[in-house]
Amino acid sequence: MVDRREPAVAAGMALVRVAWAGICRTDLELVRGYMDFRGVLGHEFTGRVVEGPDAWRGARVVGEINFACARCPTCAKGLRRHCPARTVMGIAGADGAIAELVAVPVANLHRVPDAVPDEHAVFTEPLAAAFEIGEQLAIEPGGRALVLGDGKLGLLVAQVLAAAGARVALLGHHDAKLARLAARDIETSHTDAWTGGPAPLVVEATGSVAGFRRAVSLVEPRGTLVLKSTIAAHEPLDLAPLVIHEVTVVGSRCGPFAPALDALASGTVEVDSLVTARFPLARADAALARSTERDTLKVLIDCS
Amino acid sequence: MVDRREPAVAAGMALVRVAWAGICRTDLELVRGYMDFRGVLGHEFTGRVVEGPDAWRGARVVGEINFACARCPTCAKGLRRHCPARTVMGIAGADGAIAELVAVPVANLHRVPDAVPDEHAVFTEPLAAAFEIGEQLAIEPGGRALVLGDGKLGLLVAQVLAAAGARVALLGHHDAKLARLAARDIETSHTDAWTGGPAPLVVEATGSVAGFRRAVSLVEPRGTLVLKSTIAAHEPLDLAPLVIHEVTVVGSRCGPFAPALDALASGTVEVDSLVTARFPLARADAALARSTERDTLKVLIDCS
Repeated sequence: MVDRREPAVAAGMALVRVAWAGICRTDLELVRGYMDFRGVLGHEFTGRVVEGPDAWRGARVVGEINFACARCPTCAKGLRRHCPARTVMGIAGADGAIAELVAVPVANLHRVPDAVPDEHAVFTEPLAAAFEIGEQLAIEPGGRALVLGDGKLGLLVAQVLAAAGARVALLGHHDAKLARLAARDIETSHTDAWTGGPAPLVVEATGSVAGFRRAVSLVEPRGTLVLKSTIAAHEPLDLAPLVIHEVTVVGSRCGPFAPALDALASGTVEVDSLVTARFPLARADAALARSTERDTLKVLIDCS
Repeated sequence: MVDRREPAVAAGMALVRVAWAGICRTDLELVRGYMDFRGVLGHEFTGRVVEGPDAWRGARVVGEINFACARCPTCAKGLRRHCPARTVMGIAGADGAIAELVAVPVANLHRVPDAVPDEHAVFTEPLAAAFEIGEQLAIEPGGRALVLGDGKLGLLVAQVLAAAGARVALLGHHDAKLARLAARDIETSHTDAWTGGPAPLVVEATGSVAGFRRAVSLVEPRGTLVLKSTIAAHEPLDLAPLVIHEVTVVGSRCGPFAPALDALASGTVEVDSLVTARFPLARADAALARSTERDTLKVLIDCS
């Protein structure tokens, strides 16, 4: 998992000396065999360019994780994050950022504004995933939105929707996690104690079959259910309510970095309170183990 | 199932003498216990008003099947077909049209244009369900659309999408059924023989888990999958591809009658070839049995 070899820097690539990397639920699934990935983990990072075009050398950066071919019809349609030939940093076919150095296409780099410290910038990738919702659908100001799941992603999604003007309630099971948003004046509730009824917009961020079922039951007729987590059901799922209530389900994955960096710079989204623990790169295994513990939110790895 | 009692006609209701009723897959599921419905079946019909407001008496009509309260917030939003207090003709809490007479709210009636014979008018309800897709999303002229399922609904959906300008292919398993659309110059293929690749719009009209899985595999990234049939999986379903490819899934049920009647009047949609058999009302049980046979499309019941 920890790789100290110097990555080769091909044309169009930059070499980044990693400052911080973050651990994501996907990393834990990859360790368990998801995607059959055999490489360096890590797709949330910030660092400084040490090799690459002059214009980028020395720049403090974050990087988008889908490495597209830029030549296929999908890329031509502007859907580079869906390029069928893509590799994905730390997930599929490309080494990741839980390392001293990581190679990233120059086209994927974004400069980090001075106002954003490294420990915030490392949240750009998951925060961009939260902003993806606004790319896919119109968030109605004043409209009720329910976010299911008080993990890292749910906490970010709830903040992004609230910043867009939605009347957000975050439903979860962990008092300590829910308290993070209560402090931000966002309504929170234990999932089973929610008495506010269904909503026109529900975001599933639990990644569990139980969460999916609950989410389906909480969408109003003709409402929208956003799936932010991959769900592989090991038990039967009843999709009939989606048809009966004419629900629109929107699968949602990686998102745009620019609004995420803006939100971190302006403080619209708060991430400090999401950091549960920090580990040095040499103890990356311990960092992954810590990530699996209950009540853990973000675990950061100091790669400097 | 056959009910010869005179339905009581309350205020706001009309009594319709049924000319033809059609059998739908839902009827077969209701017989097997779906919705725990205990009443007269039948939600596809055409007939003539025999009791009700003067303006309607004698009119040749079809009727929408969701009987809404017209007073709740959902109805106020214009979503009468989703009224939580609704009854549904022949499906939930209201007797249906496989009978000599059926009671229908006047608000649900539509006059049948002279150009539409009774045996075509009885297709208004399922055809409206096909037109619902165009109410929920923009059908791109020239865009590729795949319809999975060569049953009655699939054949209607394919025609409606083709009429809207989509480049439609219908995928199914029954030569005789596929031939109906080949005769209409719509591309058809055995599902397993389809080599045209994925599409931005896929309509699932098989109602089976296998069909759902196939449909998911045939949607392009960021594409749309319309679910026209209720699916209750008895085996696990993997929803991860919806997230990875950011697919939008649109549950779609009952639709608008006006465009369906227009299409029947203009001949844009052809329904004659979908009629497999006709039975008199006295043999409604035999009609239902016939509906379950392979290669059967629409079975009509002569209620006159």
